[in-house]
Amino acid sequence: MCPRHKKVGVVGLLTTSRYEYVKAFEQPDILLPNTWIVVRIDGRGFHKLSDHYVFKKPNDLRALDLMNAAAVEVMKDLPDLCIAYGVSDEFSFVFHPSCQLFERRNAKLVTTIVSTFTAHYIHQWGTYFPSTPLQPPYLPSFDGRAVIYPTTRILRDYMSWRQVDCHINNLYNTTFWTMVLQGGMSNTDAEQELKGTVSSDKNEILFKRFGINYNNELEIYKKGSVLYRQYELQTPNSAQTPTEEDTSVPESTQSRSQQDKLRKLRRKAQVVVDHVDIIKDEFWERRPWILSNKPGKLPA
Amino acid sequence: MCPRHKKVGVVGLLTTSRYEYVKAFEQPDILLPNTWIVVRIDGRGFHKLSDHYVFKKPNDLRALDLMNAAAVEVMKDLPDLCIAYGVSDEFSFVFHPSCQLFERRNAKLVTTIVSTFTAHYIHQWGTYFPSTPLQPPYLPSFDGRAVIYPTTRILRDYMSWRQVDCHINNLYNTTFWTMVLQGGMSNTDAEQELKGTVSSDKNEILFKRFGINYNNELEIYKKGSVLYRQYELQTPNSAQTPTEEDTSVPESTQSRSQQDKLRKLRRKAQVVVDHVDIIKDEFWERRPWILSNKPGKLPA
Amino acid sequence: MCPRHKKVGVVGLLTTSRYEYVKAFEQPDILLPNTWIVVRIDGRGFHKLSDHYVFKKPNDLRALDLMNAAAVEVMKDLPDLCIAYGVSDEFSFVFHPSCQLFERRNAKLVTTIVSTFTAHYIHQWGTYFPSTPLQPPYLPSFDGRAVIYPTTRILRDYMSWRQVDCHINNLYNTTFWTMVLQGGMSNTDAEQELKGTVSSDKNEILFKRFGINYNNELEIYKKGSVLYRQYELQTPNSAQTPTEEDTSVPESTQSRSQQDKLRKLRRKAQVVVDHVDIIKDEFWERRPWILSNKPGKLPA
Amino acid sequence: MCPRHKKVGVVGLLTTSRYEYVKAFEQPDILLPNTWIVVRIDGRGFHKLSDHYVFKKPNDLRALDLMNAAAVEVMKDLPDLCIAYGVSDEFSFVFHPSCQLFERRNAKLVTTIVSTFTAHYIHQWGTYFPSTPLQPPYLPSFDGRAVIYPTTRILRDYMSWRQVDCHINNLYNTTFWTMVLQGGMSNTDAEQELKGTVSSDKNEILFKRFGINYNNELEIYKKGSVLYRQYELQTPNSAQTPTEEDTSVPESTQSRSQQDKLRKLRRKAQVVVDHVDIIKDEFWERRPWILSNKPGKLPA
Repeated sequence: MCPRHKKVGVVGLLTTSRYEYVKAFEQPDILLPNTWIVVRIDGRGFHKLSDHYVFKKPNDLRALDLMNAAAVEVMKDLPDLCIAYGVSDEFSFVFHPSCQLFERRNAKLVTTIVSTFTAHYIHQWGTYFPSTPLQPPYLPSFDGRAVIYPTTRILRDYMSWRQVDCHINNLYNTTFWTMVLQGGMSNTDAEQELKGTVSSDKNEILFKRFGINYNNELEIYKKGSVLYRQYELQTPNSAQTPTEEDTSVPESTQSRSQQDKLRKLRRKAQVVVDHVDIIKDEFWERRPWILSNKPGKLPA
Repeated sequence: MCPRHKKVGVVGLLTTSRYEYVKAFEQPDILLPNTWIVVRIDGRGFHKLSDHYVFKKPNDLRALDLMNAAAVEVMKDLPDLCIAYGVSDEFSFVFHPSCQLFERRNAKLVTTIVSTFTAHYIHQWGTYFPSTPLQPPYLPSFDGRAVIYPTTRILRDYMSWRQVDCHINNLYNTTFWTMVLQGGMSNTDAEQELKGTVSSDKNEILFKRFGINYNNELEIYKKGSVLYRQYELQTPNSAQTPTEEDTSVPESTQSRSQQDKLRKLRRKAQVVVDHVDIIKDEFWERRPWILSNKPGKLPA
Repeated sequence: MCPRHKKVGVVGLLTTSRYEYVKAFEQPDILLPNTWIVVRIDGRGFHKLSDHYVFKKPNDLRALDLMNAAAVEVMKDLPDLCIAYGVSDEFSFVFHPSCQLFERRNAKLVTTIVSTFTAHYIHQWGTYFPSTPLQPPYLPSFDGRAVIYPTTRILRDYMSWRQVDCHINNLYNTTFWTMVLQGGMSNTDAEQELKGTVSSDKNEILFKRFGINYNNELEIYKKGSVLYRQYELQTPNSAQTPTEEDTSVPESTQSRSQQDKLRKLRRKAQVVVDHVDIIKDEFWERRPWILSNKPGKLPA
Repeated sequence: MCPRHKKVGVVGLLTTSRYEYVKAFEQPDILLPNTWIVVRIDGRGFHKLSDHYVFKKPNDLRALDLMNAAAVEVMKDLPDLCIAYGVSDEFSFVFHPSCQLFERRNAKLVTTIVSTFTAHYIHQWGTYFPSTPLQPPYLPSFDGRAVIYPTTRILRDYMSWRQVDCHINNLYNTTFWTMVLQGGMSNTDAEQELKGTVSSDKNEILFKRFGINYNNELEIYKKGSVLYRQYELQTPNSAQTPTEEDTSVPESTQSRSQQDKLRKLRRKAQVVVDHVDIIKDEFWERRPWILSNKPGKLPA
């Protein structure tokens, strides 16, 4: 907390120098340059936690909104982030291949995101759960890890993987909890009946037995949440999908002052929360700044 | 939040299988077996933050107590932790060489500690700073990293390094802020005068000019904070300092059920906060359970 | 050498089981999928060695031919290799992003190349230096390391870097040794005069003082050696430079049997040694199989 | 081969500077300080190779002697090595925790050992197989990897593991090949009969059917080969087994000049090849310099 004066010093007969050799045990953990960095965080023991705080099944909108609110703060705090995608109690934060934040040190990037996210999640809990105060030791917390992806194609496949996973889990959970909560089935019976079913089977159960058209479910449940900085949308035809060449410009070609300038421009953009398809090309073609990392024109 | 049904599924024409190859990019990060694991966390931008929330100089007892309160919760949440040491806005948490928590995965261990610590720090802020509410986006957060040490000798040297560092910084800061706050000097002048001084010079400045005997400063400032589970102290002579052989028992010799049993025993012990010398042997000889990882006898 | 029977067994009272926990200390070293792998090897102490075996200055054609002969054998032994580039006592061997050899284990890939290269270098020494037998302990040996590159652009920049380095070193060395051997200058004087010169200065020294036109030097000295499998060349216009999308096909889309088939096809192609520009696009456009990893048509 | 002049230079319009950013992709691979480093190498495809060159079954003394001859040269070339242990087509080379060779870079250590070993193996082949010249492409080669062990206890368990493995494999192979070569059984029948047998069964088969007392087999077959530098043996009682404290002295306490001096002393000692038990304490107690890394007294 105080200004650190890290010079080797002497107190009585004590010096740090005798012990400083232990610093040599810290090993470097720089992530490979020019690769996409995804930091994915996950709620720790959220199954139990969601019971404790009586989250609604199959989706609790307050809990999802709180996740998104915390993620928006992370995006604002770290303008180097291009995009984030959240579903359930997990969130993926994406840094561009040209990112140099914290010299790309793995632990520094991951823990900064995990801690910032946690801080805002705890701090805003009361806003989203006004009548359910946090009860230690049942405090929400998150773990996280960084994974690197060498090309834009693979990064997009990662994003698609998470969104397809969202679809599959949500359709399953919606059907399961409808069978239990509205249909009065036991958990075991519902699970048993759903075993081996495909999506059309589940859609049919929902529609025929309960009159529920899955398509009418909330987009936030079906698509998850996409966070990015908002600039003027481009028309898909005019806008060129950036090629690998565009997106993977060696970081060495960007000076530190250029990076600082870009960071400032990004701070001015609003972070929006969207619930749209990110598997097809259209999303990316209309928002070329996400993959190119070149800020667009601020909306009027 | 919902029970995850991670089976490969199908929604319309979408399957995760096409994208699941991206999982292969996650790389293992298991820490070397039979080594001490130290997770050190540090406040992010706490210099600026301590100005924003007007922390007292050179030490703010509320801030230190809040750090310790959060660390105690981490120790309680993770019974695998042997000991923790805190100074200023940093804390070191130590896992024993036999620790198998999270299969010793680096990111999982570090982020769990960072997130749990952050959660409690934010949640208990109001208790320690009742008249200074948190003001986003100025939320405290922490980064962290794991470092492994192969022998008990080196682990103890690491601990000594942090405590010597505490001494040196605190003597410097105490003298500096006394010169500024009581002596009316400018920051620059005080810094200038202290340049090149050794500890006896600083002690003399404090005593001769301000009548302050550094030895009378609070132990928490001079020694930092040591957290560990409390069992009956042993007499140094009878107690044998554990040798490398004792402390580095290959983890394979401990079954999972043995580990679970030990974990339960540790949960029963109280976590205490102490401000004592951890450089000399005495501290460790009287508390052999810290290095041996064998729970002692609970105090009556 | 014998068939290994790795089952846990018993000899007298000895079993391996008590000690097998040590296997847990081996840490995985899988290289990130879908990245180019370059294994670069370097002669150990070749400066001293080239004096001992009286290599010709500035280039010894026998030594370069021996390097190339050993590298050709490595290429033949490992059909997964796309291309190799050698200069002086170093050689870079390149595996395609889709390569799955040895599960992409770092140590396995590097040591296999280093050992195979060394074996052939030693074994063929007598062919290239018939009157200079090897004299232990002065045996040539090589160290090596693997580096991964995420995109084709960066891989090509790596190759360009090595070839530019070849140019620069060779022009310097040619001028230096001409000044010493033909011009009778001392090493120190030649070094002194060359300090700060640019290439045109060196070209002029060679031409004006010694009547040497650097352009007439052997291509193997000026360009280094490029090794690849020979198929029918394609006309640059018709042939499309493979894009990142083509070259970085996720390995998961290639079955093991497909990979085996490709490997067999590659074994049939001849490995050629070329001394040409690999910085410009033409080389790669005419030989699209190198970057695409799809074997071309065998020449008639 | 020529003196490298690695300064950034210019040839025509080419400079390396444009491409040098690729150097940033090389990632550090320093092995954790103060740990034992074991580099284990293995023959590549030696099962097939031993058929090709008609190695004798179950053990070929010439092949083992050649392995040992190559390993002795590696020990001589790298005085930092404490001990090596070989069995069949594998060899383990051990560096002391205080070792600083090549800054403890993983790839550099492993490839240097693999390449030096291969060079001598190939070069001395003719000495041990005078009537069986090497026939390319069937050249012997080796792969390798480094593993680190944090304590002396674990290092010794590693060594014991390899020697127990030697025992088990050799008893099996001796019995199997005796049944096949002397007993006229088919490979399948011998394998079938040996399935599930323990060591006493195998001893009995050898003795009752073939009159072979396994104890009379050559020590090199039963114990493998231990290589170390020879100093005056110490009496087990007087000599203290070095404790972890002795063996794991932080490297920082040894200056570079001290290390150079030790290296020179080690060069003077003879490297011996022994076939003895390394599982029990006696071997290590009589040769304390192996684990302490302090050269002993040269024998008269």
